[in-house]
Amino acid sequence: MIKVSIVGGTGYTAGELLRILLRHPNVHIESVISSTSAGTPVAEMHRDLMGETDLVFTDRFHQPDVIFLCLGHGLSRSFLQENDLPATCRVIDLGNDFRNEPVFGDREFVFGLCELNREQIRSCHNVANPGCFATSILLGLLPLAAHSLLRDEVHVHAITGSTGAGKRPGETTHFSYRDGNISVYKAFTHQHLEEIRRTLASAASIGPATKKVNPENVLNAGNSGNQASIDLPVINFVPMRGDFTRGIFASLYTRWNGTMSETEAIQLFKSYYEPSPFVFVSDQPISLKEVVNTNKALLHVGFHNGYIHITSIIDNLLKGASGQAVQNMNLMFGLDEATGLQLKGSAF
Amino acid sequence: MIKVSIVGGTGYTAGELLRILLRHPNVHIESVISSTSAGTPVAEMHRDLMGETDLVFTDRFHQPDVIFLCLGHGLSRSFLQENDLPATCRVIDLGNDFRNEPVFGDREFVFGLCELNREQIRSCHNVANPGCFATSILLGLLPLAAHSLLRDEVHVHAITGSTGAGKRPGETTHFSYRDGNISVYKAFTHQHLEEIRRTLASAASIGPATKKVNPENVLNAGNSGNQASIDLPVINFVPMRGDFTRGIFASLYTRWNGTMSETEAIQLFKSYYEPSPFVFVSDQPISLKEVVNTNKALLHVGFHNGYIHITSIIDNLLKGASGQAVQNMNLMFGLDEATGLQLKGSAF
Amino acid sequence: MIKVSIVGGTGYTAGELLRILLRHPNVHIESVISSTSAGTPVAEMHRDLMGETDLVFTDRFHQPDVIFLCLGHGLSRSFLQENDLPATCRVIDLGNDFRNEPVFGDREFVFGLCELNREQIRSCHNVANPGCFATSILLGLLPLAAHSLLRDEVHVHAITGSTGAGKRPGETTHFSYRDGNISVYKAFTHQHLEEIRRTLASAASIGPATKKVNPENVLNAGNSGNQASIDLPVINFVPMRGDFTRGIFASLYTRWNGTMSETEAIQLFKSYYEPSPFVFVSDQPISLKEVVNTNKALLHVGFHNGYIHITSIIDNLLKGASGQAVQNMNLMFGLDEATGLQLKGSAF
Amino acid sequence: MIKVSIVGGTGYTAGELLRILLRHPNVHIESVISSTSAGTPVAEMHRDLMGETDLVFTDRFHQPDVIFLCLGHGLSRSFLQENDLPATCRVIDLGNDFRNEPVFGDREFVFGLCELNREQIRSCHNVANPGCFATSILLGLLPLAAHSLLRDEVHVHAITGSTGAGKRPGETTHFSYRDGNISVYKAFTHQHLEEIRRTLASAASIGPATKKVNPENVLNAGNSGNQASIDLPVINFVPMRGDFTRGIFASLYTRWNGTMSETEAIQLFKSYYEPSPFVFVSDQPISLKEVVNTNKALLHVGFHNGYIHITSIIDNLLKGASGQAVQNMNLMFGLDEATGLQLKGSAF
Repeated sequence: MIKVSIVGGTGYTAGELLRILLRHPNVHIESVISSTSAGTPVAEMHRDLMGETDLVFTDRFHQPDVIFLCLGHGLSRSFLQENDLPATCRVIDLGNDFRNEPVFGDREFVFGLCELNREQIRSCHNVANPGCFATSILLGLLPLAAHSLLRDEVHVHAITGSTGAGKRPGETTHFSYRDGNISVYKAFTHQHLEEIRRTLASAASIGPATKKVNPENVLNAGNSGNQASIDLPVINFVPMRGDFTRGIFASLYTRWNGTMSETEAIQLFKSYYEPSPFVFVSDQPISLKEVVNTNKALLHVGFHNGYIHITSIIDNLLKGASGQAVQNMNLMFGLDEATGLQLKGSAF
Repeated sequence: MIKVSIVGGTGYTAGELLRILLRHPNVHIESVISSTSAGTPVAEMHRDLMGETDLVFTDRFHQPDVIFLCLGHGLSRSFLQENDLPATCRVIDLGNDFRNEPVFGDREFVFGLCELNREQIRSCHNVANPGCFATSILLGLLPLAAHSLLRDEVHVHAITGSTGAGKRPGETTHFSYRDGNISVYKAFTHQHLEEIRRTLASAASIGPATKKVNPENVLNAGNSGNQASIDLPVINFVPMRGDFTRGIFASLYTRWNGTMSETEAIQLFKSYYEPSPFVFVSDQPISLKEVVNTNKALLHVGFHNGYIHITSIIDNLLKGASGQAVQNMNLMFGLDEATGLQLKGSAF
Repeated sequence: MIKVSIVGGTGYTAGELLRILLRHPNVHIESVISSTSAGTPVAEMHRDLMGETDLVFTDRFHQPDVIFLCLGHGLSRSFLQENDLPATCRVIDLGNDFRNEPVFGDREFVFGLCELNREQIRSCHNVANPGCFATSILLGLLPLAAHSLLRDEVHVHAITGSTGAGKRPGETTHFSYRDGNISVYKAFTHQHLEEIRRTLASAASIGPATKKVNPENVLNAGNSGNQASIDLPVINFVPMRGDFTRGIFASLYTRWNGTMSETEAIQLFKSYYEPSPFVFVSDQPISLKEVVNTNKALLHVGFHNGYIHITSIIDNLLKGASGQAVQNMNLMFGLDEATGLQLKGSAF
Repeated sequence: MIKVSIVGGTGYTAGELLRILLRHPNVHIESVISSTSAGTPVAEMHRDLMGETDLVFTDRFHQPDVIFLCLGHGLSRSFLQENDLPATCRVIDLGNDFRNEPVFGDREFVFGLCELNREQIRSCHNVANPGCFATSILLGLLPLAAHSLLRDEVHVHAITGSTGAGKRPGETTHFSYRDGNISVYKAFTHQHLEEIRRTLASAASIGPATKKVNPENVLNAGNSGNQASIDLPVINFVPMRGDFTRGIFASLYTRWNGTMSETEAIQLFKSYYEPSPFVFVSDQPISLKEVVNTNKALLHVGFHNGYIHITSIIDNLLKGASGQAVQNMNLMFGLDEATGLQLKGSAF
């Protein structure tokens, strides 16, 4: 059994990790760390876990094989500074501290987008789990980037559920404000843009996933890499706040000058994700709830006005956070990638 | 023009007052008081008022004819203590400070349920505006109480929108918690029970609204009254939190031993509310959105298992708060009760 | 592997069965029957199943070990009349055809409320799966009935999600009508009342679950039984339509004259459900989403005004339909009751 | 008093017209036509109108001064063919029959976007009321088009409430489907694109609204016009279905090569809408509910990545349909444009 510790245990992503890992056949949850709630039963905070666990929040971990960091952005780095983790303990960071600055002391973080970096992740000790918007957008663009078909700027609108904003209540997560409401925030400036750009460069340098990959190149490309030589287009990204709790719906398009036919392009997407157990290309249009409460991503591809138009949907807390984190853990520990992640969707 | 001052101007009920009073033909808003936001344009806080007003929050009022107190419960009393209002200035308190303890210095407060105390309100200087749950429940019971038909205990479930919980964000108003969720709170102990009991006693002592009323009796009954002699049944009240923003849906029933027929009973309800421009008895079942964004109340009456079953709906911010407050103001200043309150419902 | 056939495969409860059974370790889905959609891939109708199954709707079954009937009410009986099922094929009916009239030819149906009839279900061939409202209300009352503590009438309000109304679009399931809306329907006359009454009588005759039970008596009590001698109180039940998709929140109370203390009463509930893997008694108040997308039921018990007040929550499509149906299947085939039903809740 | 007839009286836009016109000081509703519901009280269908009107649906009109056509698209033309309207009777069509083909017999229709065609509308007899998406997008682009600043393609995502899909229930308006869901439809091909293009050409030929306009030119430009000479950019428009009932949120951007400063550009928007009582340019970001249940439109303008980014919000049933129709009526009958349209917003 993999001994797991979860740090920052009272938040949304920690709750989702618990919901998954309590049912994971290869995991023993050793500790759920919360400095503020130590001593409180976990099921008192995550009320839906009643009857499923006797775990109690604690303020210390013991000898975990892997530690999940579910901390506010910026706090993962502090945690590693203040805690002397054994070198053997793997780290999966759900924050954004190491996505773009992947080195911390001896630890080098791989960007944990399984569909791109599957092989690297299998052999690495530290994963920077991707952001939720980044995941939904990247899954829509990776096949294009890998085949050098991403040459013109990209136009993205993506709408997110309220859980993306975290547990702390505030003006824009107040029910009276948010219900039936739509708004735009951080237009063209969202902090996930950097990891999107870095990762597209990495995908472009790696090429089609079916190609034999030189891991050394991949690592460089993904992390500290020589992207300079790749001429990446601008990503115009308008994030929107939706009046639902779970999920991201991304709609994106870019100029389509391809010499290949539309059918071939769609086939290219399907081939690219063939090895991926959670990403599917739908021939019919998709709607967000088809993935809610699952670790799946669905894509749909169309062609209009000289553009290729891709819609991409994920559950922001699962494929966009805790589900993907477990998928990374599975890879790191040599398990089947999908172990414990065959979740029943809520559908409605 | 009636010169109005609104105290506690940044909250939900103040916002609703502004939305009504800016369109009221007989009102001039003299000041909108907020100690924390003085100097800020009102439309920066109540963003939907953009283009409708140049008012700026201030921390002082001048010579209002009437002052609306939109303060947290308990703070109205403090406000009156700390501010030396001219004796001529009328007061309408939207909090609960004077509903059950209606005397403050020289000021005596009438319980501002227009359908019961219309005549008193016309001649009074101070109104304690009823609570939202109290309004919805009382409108369902007044005709029974007035005809001495309320003899056995009452069973009430009522579900409220999130705006009833005010503007301050918290756990149970967080969108991620509340969306798609239902819960019970303060079961059998809600603070509105006292004003419900007091008012039913008052209604019982007044009798049918069409009877000639001795105002002296009414005042006593309504406020400091001789309810002791009236044997009032228990109100079993289970309040529920709904996942919508506006409105209260109350479902209540009590033993029906009446010698009158069901048709006569329904007619009794219709007659009771005949003088009331905002309360209607529907022959068809009702649904909450039929009153949202209006000052109306709708009732439906049925008979089952030896019970009379009444459903009662209001918009908690309008008939349950700011709309009723303006209705009271209209009565106090000799205007038609409905002035400025013929609001277009949102319906959807 | 248990060979399963699902009849009426395009509806909501069939979709939920598929979501569960595709992940069930002991099940092989042999056929999904739909007369109208034969030939269509299942994942084209239940779009969230994309990537999870290659099943295609068909109009015939082969040799299932068990058949789930997910048909409109009244159609299960027709199906059995028109189809010559092998005697060895077990039947689980999710409709209401056999809940109150449990005999059809040689087939005798047990009322499939696992927490009451666990032992009978283990040895039976035919199950009438309980209604969703009935399940939520009965779970709140069983411990009282079993201990002869249910002596006075019961007051119930219960609010249901839109999936309870099925897939066919109509006026009261139109989003523009239902969003932000609340209404009452079938007040005091809901069709589940009969199965509630029958089952309470059965529970009363069985007594505490921990007692040794004579299966012969149980069968009689549950189905064709001698309830005449048990003096059951009236259930006053007001069903409400909520503006959410999944779940039932039931709030019910009845006179509490018990000689036992409140603590003892709560302990009685906990003991009653001790053998049940999905029912839990919470010491804290509960909210609906704590069970959504799970097969769990949560209860909370309080005492006020001489009443015992119970809140009870389930997911109407799971514990209230398809989840409970699989729980019944597990019992019928000698599996652990919870197999395949340890579902990750959606929580938000 | 203006005598009004409403044709197609049972639908959503007719309901909104009624909600507005029943409170309009200069209107007498002569008839509400419904072939299917003749004889039924209007308030039985539009249930929120209970207590507000005794009107009964009829199948014939008498001598209206103006007739509002609230028919399914394509049916307005049939109606005019089958009914011999007096030449003096004005027509306001809320469908799309005459937006792009503005001539029917002797009747020539002006495109009823008040902010562009105010003067024409004042003197015309027939108005083709704009579509809801078209209104929200055009209001965001008119100032650019008028100043010849719209030279490169436009990227639009706009999300609409469920009332935009009409009253007839269907799969994508089923609450169980739509709640918490997001989807794209008619990507790049929405039928409003043509009226958007035609109107932008018209705006370009008219120029800044403050300029003196030759009505003859305007009419030509707006309807049958010489747009050929204007080189209009492509509009890339992705419509989305939102999980709310009312409103459209449009987010659009286009290349900004302007020689003017950003401040000047924002001032240009403000100046353009200075004569318009319902359109405002906000200095702060906007959220949809700031306009819900009002006839207002709010705009916000920002600059990023060489683009000018505009967000534009309206209530689809008001400024996007019935509100704008009444605004047109006001203009046609020489009333103040805002008469009867100073609606209290719902805000929450």
